[in-house]
Amino acid sequence: MVREEVFVRCKAAIATIPLPQVDATDRGEPRGPLIVTSEIPGPRSQELSARLSQYQNADAVQFFVDYERSQGNYVVDVDGNVLLDIFTQIASLPLGYNHPRLIKAMQKPENLATVINRPALGSYPPIDYVERLQTSLLSVAPPGLRQVQTMGCGSCSVENGMKAINMAYQRRIRGPRPYTEGEMGSCLVNQSPGSPKLSFMSFSNAFHGRTMGALSLTHAKWYVKLDFPVPEWPIAPFPQLRYPLEEFVRENHAEERRCLEQVRDLIYTWDKRGEPVSGICIEPIQGDGGDNHASAAFFQGLQDICDETGVYLMLDEVQTGGGVSGKYWAHEHFRLRHAPHVVAFSKRMLSGGFYFADELRPTEGYRIYNTWTGDPTRLILLEQVIKEVMEKGLMAKAELVGSYMLDGLRVLQSEFPGVLSNARGLGTLCAVDVRDSDTRAQVVRRMRNRGVNLGVCGAVGIRLRPSLLFKHHHVDIFLDKLRTTIAEM
Amino acid sequence: MVREEVFVRCKAAIATIPLPQVDATDRGEPRGPLIVTSEIPGPRSQELSARLSQYQNADAVQFFVDYERSQGNYVVDVDGNVLLDIFTQIASLPLGYNHPRLIKAMQKPENLATVINRPALGSYPPIDYVERLQTSLLSVAPPGLRQVQTMGCGSCSVENGMKAINMAYQRRIRGPRPYTEGEMGSCLVNQSPGSPKLSFMSFSNAFHGRTMGALSLTHAKWYVKLDFPVPEWPIAPFPQLRYPLEEFVRENHAEERRCLEQVRDLIYTWDKRGEPVSGICIEPIQGDGGDNHASAAFFQGLQDICDETGVYLMLDEVQTGGGVSGKYWAHEHFRLRHAPHVVAFSKRMLSGGFYFADELRPTEGYRIYNTWTGDPTRLILLEQVIKEVMEKGLMAKAELVGSYMLDGLRVLQSEFPGVLSNARGLGTLCAVDVRDSDTRAQVVRRMRNRGVNLGVCGAVGIRLRPSLLFKHHHVDIFLDKLRTTIAEM
Repeated sequence: MVREEVFVRCKAAIATIPLPQVDATDRGEPRGPLIVTSEIPGPRSQELSARLSQYQNADAVQFFVDYERSQGNYVVDVDGNVLLDIFTQIASLPLGYNHPRLIKAMQKPENLATVINRPALGSYPPIDYVERLQTSLLSVAPPGLRQVQTMGCGSCSVENGMKAINMAYQRRIRGPRPYTEGEMGSCLVNQSPGSPKLSFMSFSNAFHGRTMGALSLTHAKWYVKLDFPVPEWPIAPFPQLRYPLEEFVRENHAEERRCLEQVRDLIYTWDKRGEPVSGICIEPIQGDGGDNHASAAFFQGLQDICDETGVYLMLDEVQTGGGVSGKYWAHEHFRLRHAPHVVAFSKRMLSGGFYFADELRPTEGYRIYNTWTGDPTRLILLEQVIKEVMEKGLMAKAELVGSYMLDGLRVLQSEFPGVLSNARGLGTLCAVDVRDSDTRAQVVRRMRNRGVNLGVCGAVGIRLRPSLLFKHHHVDIFLDKLRTTIAEM
Repeated sequence: MVREEVFVRCKAAIATIPLPQVDATDRGEPRGPLIVTSEIPGPRSQELSARLSQYQNADAVQFFVDYERSQGNYVVDVDGNVLLDIFTQIASLPLGYNHPRLIKAMQKPENLATVINRPALGSYPPIDYVERLQTSLLSVAPPGLRQVQTMGCGSCSVENGMKAINMAYQRRIRGPRPYTEGEMGSCLVNQSPGSPKLSFMSFSNAFHGRTMGALSLTHAKWYVKLDFPVPEWPIAPFPQLRYPLEEFVRENHAEERRCLEQVRDLIYTWDKRGEPVSGICIEPIQGDGGDNHASAAFFQGLQDICDETGVYLMLDEVQTGGGVSGKYWAHEHFRLRHAPHVVAFSKRMLSGGFYFADELRPTEGYRIYNTWTGDPTRLILLEQVIKEVMEKGLMAKAELVGSYMLDGLRVLQSEFPGVLSNARGLGTLCAVDVRDSDTRAQVVRRMRNRGVNLGVCGAVGIRLRPSLLFKHHHVDIFLDKLRTTIAEM
């Protein structure tokens, strides 16, 4: 049987490899990386990749993971390599691997029923659903927002945020009159007035997801977009700032003004064109597109333009939310005049979904809906994550650790000015650019072979997305290995 | 504390209500419905709905469920009502509630790590992923298909199926040459040639999902579509057949020919228009749009047209897959000349995703991708579901029980010719129409108050979607209560 062949053989082989000495102060987390194969992916990962590629393109596989043995900030691969994980499943593991609090929650028999009997949440919610929402998502709602809708993934969260915005926009135009037969009939055949000629604004280098609506707002990587038709909607330039931000205040301010002017121009142009902009979607820090920052003043200015023109503002916090910025939501750093209309989330919130302004609340059932609309199992886990974040003050710690990491990156970039540049960050959402994409690929590969798993962003960025349990000594391991790696190149 | 207030109070109150006598032959399933409130939703469900509606529009909530106490074909609501569930969370619970086999699987400690540490499957798959795919999804792959990609939900499955089709279509045009700078650059700003002018064909009354791409193919209900812009793509008429099918062979054949001719016409029209049809998406039986059937000959004819014109064919088996038709995939009844290019699934497959032809396999990594691309926890459960289906011969049973139910519906419609009509079905995928939508609403409400939970479809249809454990005596309960309900109206 296949399972005997590979799976059991793998497990048995791995069990013979000792994990590095355990650090008792860190919940049994290994003391540091341990590398047992000359290259990662090692032979077992390669074998499994070859098997997987019988059934799908497996070129994006980095390595296969032994999730049972992974712990805290350390991921253990199927060859027994132990890596410090600073990418955490594309920024989606808030408390690292196998946190005892999450294990305990899932061992409770009453939570088993939630895993086994996945409800159609919109129509048959479980007995504890309202309480679960209150103790999880609602307990960390962005200031000023108290409506929330769960969804399955980040793309669906953005898509449904767009939908809520479009509905509110049309409701404002329509006023209190009921829907006409013409509206209800025409939308069924994709025609106006029921399917209105509305556009949605996004920014260059943005990443908001991969389903058609979210993909229309995405401009980060060709391989995400090529060959798929999407509407020609307005795309504003995202500010291209110079780092460190505090050194280039005047230049950056000018750049941000330039971008805001284009936002305003595009709104007027598309209004005249007969496809008015109903909403604008933006990341507080652009993630996949290159960890691009903009100032609080930029976001305040953007909100002002939205308010002047009646355009709704959606912040996509799929990558930035969950406490790693030092606040639960990165946009809290922007001191906006009022809450954004939509805040979309997923990843380290464990559940997809979006918070939204009262004004955006659908007036009928089934307007924002699908079979599952999320998964309450994820809220059981999120509840525990939030308790841990609050009880242990993990947001304040993320701010300190992030600042320590950013300082370290700045030291390194002054040591290797030809190789590293543009160190930047907010909390632990840090990044640094490498000379060119080939060099970056080499750095990432060598770092992995040294036991540090990294992500990338933009054309030349290294994207750091540690868990909320990332500490100063983890930063030291990372910086030390990065120094060695670059020095030897 | 809020939890104390409602949740514990609810649980304590429910615990005092006795469940109906248990039937030992049916794994502890109640012997029949038990109604303890005069109306469903009862007072506790209403209280919880009011609380939920503080945070979102809760108008689609039917009742709140006690998932721990629900068992087999019976759902227990928070007021202690025990209902025979013939809608099963919108057709997404293949083995009903709390199946012991699923409980046992989730109690295994090694499966806990999968729940807690949700992987980014496309890049860091778990050690047992290939085996898990083989023992779950691949073990029931539609004949002729061996490529599979998991996804989070039905909409994402359809969207990514469309994407795979569009990529293959463009690859065929492009030939072996590499992508040009123009293609890679233009797609980033939503322009051709990178974002090609392609269209995707769908059918009137179709339901394929709610994200923008899937929504473009959906034409079933206004409230799913209104106020959201979607591309104007070609929509062919879905055959409107007369039932019973065997009595109207000639008329139905003519209607299907008419529809196929329009499919062909639309392909040529849109080709000339410069927005060629890359793919056609269709349900084997239209679900939400009204349980509309078409013959095997229709689907064969559709495939012939696709083959002649070079258009790819996607079957959306989100609602029809999983064994309830009497075969694992409803399209297996159509004896197609070769496999469809894409078969999308979700719901009672527990995981979303799609099977696809080798020809549609992306040639680079990250083309079909997102952070989670599904959830391996769902495959652990699906593996057990498939074992149960195979070991217990549940598909053959579904065929027998479905046939028994359809016979019963036909008897009823002859008893109440002014009220019921168009009884139809394949396996347990049965439906019957009610005189008008008001009468249907009354029937569904009264049936629920008698302890039978039903779904609806189309303008006047009652949609039956029992679990694979549905037996003859459950059919008897359903038919008996339907007869009483209609007789008293």
